[in-house]
Amino acid sequence: MKLKSALGFSIACGVLAAMPLTASAQFAKKEDAIKYRQSAFALTGAHMNRIGAVVKGEAPFNAAEVQKSAALIATLSTLPWEAFGPGTEGGKAKPAVWKEIDKVKAGADKFMKAAADLNTAAKSGNLEQIKKAFGATGQTCKACHDDYRDK
Amino acid sequence: MKLKSALGFSIACGVLAAMPLTASAQFAKKEDAIKYRQSAFALTGAHMNRIGAVVKGEAPFNAAEVQKSAALIATLSTLPWEAFGPGTEGGKAKPAVWKEIDKVKAGADKFMKAAADLNTAAKSGNLEQIKKAFGATGQTCKACHDDYRDK
Repeated sequence: MKLKSALGFSIACGVLAAMPLTASAQFAKKEDAIKYRQSAFALTGAHMNRIGAVVKGEAPFNAAEVQKSAALIATLSTLPWEAFGPGTEGGKAKPAVWKEIDKVKAGADKFMKAAADLNTAAKSGNLEQIKKAFGATGQTCKACHDDYRDK
Repeated sequence: MKLKSALGFSIACGVLAAMPLTASAQFAKKEDAIKYRQSAFALTGAHMNRIGAVVKGEAPFNAAEVQKSAALIATLSTLPWEAFGPGTEGGKAKPAVWKEIDKVKAGADKFMKAAADLNTAAKSGNLEQIKKAFGATGQTCKACHDDYRDK
């Protein structure tokens, strides 16, 4: 695997092996990677909160707005993972992220799948389906946050 | 305009009048709005840099990667503006933003149009078209940064 080793990938880093080979070349500095993933998570959280307010009945159900948020979350869900490459420790991410990168990758896959399902549910315009898919997505967020994000 | 005044919109705020009526209700705290717009700009900047590296010949031209970045930039280009509502002063934004909100809105419109054009150019797969559209988009970024962003 010449290409991989040329890019400094470790065989143990399953998450990176599954990523585009250009991934770790995207961040010149560790701080860039941290800012990138934090920005993706911040926008994701903001739009999860918007849908959450609708699901909880705290905001009116505007199907178009929910669809816009869900589409954005689905897009954003794919972004952060390439920014957890070797040498990018820091921010709110616990060191465990880099020790258990396969578990993180599995959690990321669940989140991306749930976000795609939420997007599909939002397109249906059916609030009950949205509630269910939103709850499932929130669980995938929480699972990783509990284990891998500093309070 | 009962709805508008109910949401606390000022008639002077042309930018908000053109936004969805739910806009200013999305941020419970000023800090949330600042974080939201900064996150959108950070991701936009990161992906502008990725296309920029290709345009400058510093990175190989991978059409699929450029398309992904351009699509993301087009989506992200629509996000920050609702987070410049009254009372959200701060971050890197100069106070002039809120004094010249119509100019800011005009700049935002130019950027969104340029980002949509960049997305179209990226889909063409033609590097010369991409270079041209990228340059035009970068100019719209710079125009607002020069006037409204602190160094």
